[in-house]
Amino acid sequence: MIAIGSELLVPPRGETNGAYVTARLREVGVPVAARITVADDLPLLTAAFRDALSRSEVVVATGGLGPTEDDLTREAAAAALGRELVRDAGILEKLRERFARYNRVMAPVNEKQADVIRGGVVLPNPRGTAPGQYVEADGRIVVLLPGPPSEMQPMFDEQVLPVLRTRSAGAVLRRLSLRMASVSESDIEQAVAPLYKTYQNPVTTILSAPGQVELHLNAEGATAAEADARNEALAAGIRALLPGKIYSEDGRELHEVVAELLIERGLTLALAESCTGGLVSVRLTEVPGSSRFLDRSFVTYSNASKVELLGVDPALLASVGAVSEEVARAMARGARERSKTDLGLGITGIAGPDGGSPEKPVGTVFIALAGIASDPVKRVTFIGDRGRVRFQAGQLALEMLRRSLLGLPV
Amino acid sequence: MIAIGSELLVPPRGETNGAYVTARLREVGVPVAARITVADDLPLLTAAFRDALSRSEVVVATGGLGPTEDDLTREAAAAALGRELVRDAGILEKLRERFARYNRVMAPVNEKQADVIRGGVVLPNPRGTAPGQYVEADGRIVVLLPGPPSEMQPMFDEQVLPVLRTRSAGAVLRRLSLRMASVSESDIEQAVAPLYKTYQNPVTTILSAPGQVELHLNAEGATAAEADARNEALAAGIRALLPGKIYSEDGRELHEVVAELLIERGLTLALAESCTGGLVSVRLTEVPGSSRFLDRSFVTYSNASKVELLGVDPALLASVGAVSEEVARAMARGARERSKTDLGLGITGIAGPDGGSPEKPVGTVFIALAGIASDPVKRVTFIGDRGRVRFQAGQLALEMLRRSLLGLPV
Repeated sequence: MIAIGSELLVPPRGETNGAYVTARLREVGVPVAARITVADDLPLLTAAFRDALSRSEVVVATGGLGPTEDDLTREAAAAALGRELVRDAGILEKLRERFARYNRVMAPVNEKQADVIRGGVVLPNPRGTAPGQYVEADGRIVVLLPGPPSEMQPMFDEQVLPVLRTRSAGAVLRRLSLRMASVSESDIEQAVAPLYKTYQNPVTTILSAPGQVELHLNAEGATAAEADARNEALAAGIRALLPGKIYSEDGRELHEVVAELLIERGLTLALAESCTGGLVSVRLTEVPGSSRFLDRSFVTYSNASKVELLGVDPALLASVGAVSEEVARAMARGARERSKTDLGLGITGIAGPDGGSPEKPVGTVFIALAGIASDPVKRVTFIGDRGRVRFQAGQLALEMLRRSLLGLPV
Repeated sequence: MIAIGSELLVPPRGETNGAYVTARLREVGVPVAARITVADDLPLLTAAFRDALSRSEVVVATGGLGPTEDDLTREAAAAALGRELVRDAGILEKLRERFARYNRVMAPVNEKQADVIRGGVVLPNPRGTAPGQYVEADGRIVVLLPGPPSEMQPMFDEQVLPVLRTRSAGAVLRRLSLRMASVSESDIEQAVAPLYKTYQNPVTTILSAPGQVELHLNAEGATAAEADARNEALAAGIRALLPGKIYSEDGRELHEVVAELLIERGLTLALAESCTGGLVSVRLTEVPGSSRFLDRSFVTYSNASKVELLGVDPALLASVGAVSEEVARAMARGARERSKTDLGLGITGIAGPDGGSPEKPVGTVFIALAGIASDPVKRVTFIGDRGRVRFQAGQLALEMLRRSLLGLPV
């Protein structure tokens, strides 16, 4: 995989085509041996194509197909293949038409976009001017695609992938992602490693971030269905070992799952957030249709706002402090009662960097639910900076909601 | 730049060392010609080192320095350089000590981490077991560094960059980023392109995203001070052409700038958000010390909540609708009066995907400020999906606050 463009080597621009193509190729059984990002320089580019052709059966290159003097991909690929470039009359005509449509005359410099490697097939680009090319030579396949991801991705998916899929002798790779929130990576690892380690296929990897753990099952098969069946065989065993813990297997995020559960059950919710500053409210309202369950939400930063908006007893605040189990409960209850919703959620804590004490260090958070039979409340001390503490607190609040809505112990 | 590791070629893992090293090298006058990510395969890896050595004066490689059989970087680099590996007694001793400290016996497989290319200098790794290496051979410099960014980055910054800086004959690159919010990219381009195009050095690029435009000035100089002075010369001219529009030149984000202005001026703020669901509240409370200016914030999704919490007149809601200039004003005033703060902000709109009408299409947002002499209100129709509309609305609300606090016309 060759990504072409000097601009890709200068921050802050990143190179994203490589990751995209790598992932898609892997799915059709073409493992990527190397991915290179190279400057707009003819000798360097030609060498990159030569190196790649000497070691791989398929070379996919993106970028450098435009009209400027920096666009050298056609020349470099042709030189590396030892083939000449031929100006294609059909492409030329289409380029002229495109310019005419916008009432512009085409400058001669644009003509080189019609150059095709001899023996190559033109890949139409409905979303831009530069077409792609597909060349087979000496048992090797070379694919040239434009650089903008919005043009490259559909061309790759629709015109390149189907061909490579039929040509690939390699196994198809399929992934199943099992997502969990507010669990410990080592607990999950201990619970499932003895099982997944008995499988050579799929290969299982654990990805963890604060507040989130994902098990990725990567199965190979002759067909997608075969690979999926392999993943499913292991997933069934994993689910049995982690009852109720997996919140999604289809890429949905935790707040989407919770929003859908609330809509499904026709329940309404009011939030009272202190240290999270509205984070749970923002996540839940990202979901279209959230007005069906979210009536209102309070960000009660000051003690006065907790008293005035949620009816928290000032004497309680004075005696146990704003960051306490009692106040979290009072916030959840107050949000629910004053909003006349089915459920209430209260979050209070110390996100840091200041405000900690020996009894309640930075990262201490209390989360309470009201309107659920058991009215659960949790105290946790999260590790990390302000942003991490806030995210983990929001994640746990959503997970408590999810478990409550499913009737699981919280 | 060579990033080593099969795992880097399999999604969802990305490769970040390449971008980091590229950016840092550019700052000390070493342009990167190519960046390659390559699998753990000895022939491929050796070829990658050979190709790189044949075309570059400096080769930086990350990863593949661990103890497993997949860790082949030392072997590949040595083979490409035509030098042998020598087991270093000093490193071996340190490895043994490290294991002893954790009461573990070192397995023999770990010994290869003490292998150094003949003539190479060992680069200590205080944050991990695998040390790095620095080799000079035939006028080329080869640097091997461990893969984990938390180990690689400080080693590169502290041990490699200073050497390359003194060795580099290239110019130092320095960047100045001028950030603006809620402006049009083409307006900014038209205003400043005639000026910046007269400069060969710095080179100016415009980066734009919904709600945000950045001008990047990239100057080269023999020293950092010289490059900075070149950026400053152009920046002075640009500032004069964009009075009041630039909110930061030091990487700070808009919400940080607004939070600092509020703290500086000792003003308090209450928010009433509808379509943004608490987004402005979350952004402002990301800033440590935000409790000094943010007393509370209301997310008033339903009409009932606008009436009960903000005192919006039900007759007004019935006559002009919740998404209107009048209701935005009433929300801002209500938030301010009920919270007894200096300032109030109200946001109401249609984030989509549903809820639009011919008069008020999806993306229509009204934003009002209260407590500012002019009590400004704005109506905008943002383009994009739900997330984009919400982000742009929040961005404009913060920009209106910033301009008000600075006494600029809103």
